[in-house]
Amino acid sequence: MLTLQDIQHAAQRIAPYIHHTPVLSSQGLDKLLGRRFFFKAEHLQKTGSFKARGALNAALQLQNPRGLIAVSSGNHAQGVAYAAQVIGAPALVVMPEDASPTKKAATRAYGAEVYDQGVTVENREQVVRALAEETGYALIHPFDDLRVMAGQGTQALELLQQVPDLDAVLVAVGGGGLISGIATVIKSLRPACEVIGVEPETANDAQQSLQMGARVKLVQAPRTVADGVRTLAVGEKTFPVMQRHVDRIVTVPDEVTLEAQRLMMQRLKQVVEPTAGLALGPALMSYDLPERVAVIVCGGNWMP
Amino acid sequence: MLTLQDIQHAAQRIAPYIHHTPVLSSQGLDKLLGRRFFFKAEHLQKTGSFKARGALNAALQLQNPRGLIAVSSGNHAQGVAYAAQVIGAPALVVMPEDASPTKKAATRAYGAEVYDQGVTVENREQVVRALAEETGYALIHPFDDLRVMAGQGTQALELLQQVPDLDAVLVAVGGGGLISGIATVIKSLRPACEVIGVEPETANDAQQSLQMGARVKLVQAPRTVADGVRTLAVGEKTFPVMQRHVDRIVTVPDEVTLEAQRLMMQRLKQVVEPTAGLALGPALMSYDLPERVAVIVCGGNWMP
Repeated sequence: MLTLQDIQHAAQRIAPYIHHTPVLSSQGLDKLLGRRFFFKAEHLQKTGSFKARGALNAALQLQNPRGLIAVSSGNHAQGVAYAAQVIGAPALVVMPEDASPTKKAATRAYGAEVYDQGVTVENREQVVRALAEETGYALIHPFDDLRVMAGQGTQALELLQQVPDLDAVLVAVGGGGLISGIATVIKSLRPACEVIGVEPETANDAQQSLQMGARVKLVQAPRTVADGVRTLAVGEKTFPVMQRHVDRIVTVPDEVTLEAQRLMMQRLKQVVEPTAGLALGPALMSYDLPERVAVIVCGGNWMP
Repeated sequence: MLTLQDIQHAAQRIAPYIHHTPVLSSQGLDKLLGRRFFFKAEHLQKTGSFKARGALNAALQLQNPRGLIAVSSGNHAQGVAYAAQVIGAPALVVMPEDASPTKKAATRAYGAEVYDQGVTVENREQVVRALAEETGYALIHPFDDLRVMAGQGTQALELLQQVPDLDAVLVAVGGGGLISGIATVIKSLRPACEVIGVEPETANDAQQSLQMGARVKLVQAPRTVADGVRTLAVGEKTFPVMQRHVDRIVTVPDEVTLEAQRLMMQRLKQVVEPTAGLALGPALMSYDLPERVAVIVCGGNWMP
């Protein structure tokens, strides 16, 4: 099980290579939504998302790796590419052949090699395992890895220093790497603060899993604008942490996610991804929320 | 003539009501463009633009005004509305009947009344003068007013504290209120720093005016994506300040302005107006620029 100490060590380890991101707020937005919001600005993190934290915490614990390898068509790709740069190793990222050229280009721009020949959403896990064996590169999983989870949790240490008296934290949930790191910190240091996971209505596998007490896997990739959380199931390692520390999971329809993203762009003047809008979504709905709420702004890699 | 002291007094006067905005930067962007850039983030200012500074500095010097009145279909409208809120007076903003409903709504949201009945771009100056007389409200000009110019200059005092060793400042030029305030500060405190005005190719009246030594007026409203600088001519009061303190004016085609805006959104993760892109534009062209360059990010009131 992930511990607070793992996360505190991670914070020390990655500190030289990441930004201590600010917490943003808007009086106008607070007035509009009827409570105080604190936006943890991880879209201003290196690589434009929190994923740099976890990838770095894993990479920095490797002993002279030949290289790093990962599967991702999103922010984890750039996180791993950046981590490889930091440790001076090559990075290989496996992406489906039909992933967007923009995302491939962005990953290459961070210095990674993109491998996509014959890769599909269905076979990519096999491909990456075969490639890892062939190359001897170290595989960094996007969420189901205690080092990655610990890295993602480091932002909650900063958040509690920046806003000590929080009542709740809203966190988008995909594979659960982000929320398990954050929930471990919050429940260790400020147990009264609610940790609320947010999923798209069409991808509520984490909600179902917590209700059933066992991991539920979606039969196919969900359709949602929140492209950061299209995983089919939470992880083996993230699930028990979520069971222990997450208070509840709520769901948000895509139109609310987009409206929340628009509000954040309009009021905070920040470019944020739809998945960051997802995290604010519950505030635009009838969910019961306390007075002082943090929203994890997971990333800003999005273009109008 | 505007003096440094006017601007220092303005800074003290408006300090309780404005944000001391941050200076942002991006290593990736610096690498891409080959020099260091410092973005003065006035899109994070109250009302989403620097215009709040000038409007406030004028409003706070009035003796019990009945109200404030202004002509504007842009950021000055919101600046005046906000200033009126601060001094507890009503605000009346004159806008052409065919101004965008979004802009009218935004101005009303800041508590101002919008007057648009029968108003056109051509008759709006007459309308506002007639209304000012009728209502007894104090007219606040968007740029040709020493109090407004002094207010806009206050951001340069902050900028030089934040980045003392600047080589140049890039400033979008419309009526000249912004650049005359900024140039007065820069040339008083750091004369070696170049003050470079930036105009759209289609609206280079300031460039022509400085070349001719007399104010040139465009025959019609210019077509440009930089909607913050569509004025027909620089002001009577701003022109002599510009003659004295502005080093040069350069022009930028709209496609470069849009590319610069896109770069700022992508690299800084900030929502900025096209007119903010205009200010960065010269860095994407063959203009000779020094090493350490500040860019005034004039506003963020824009939606994709």
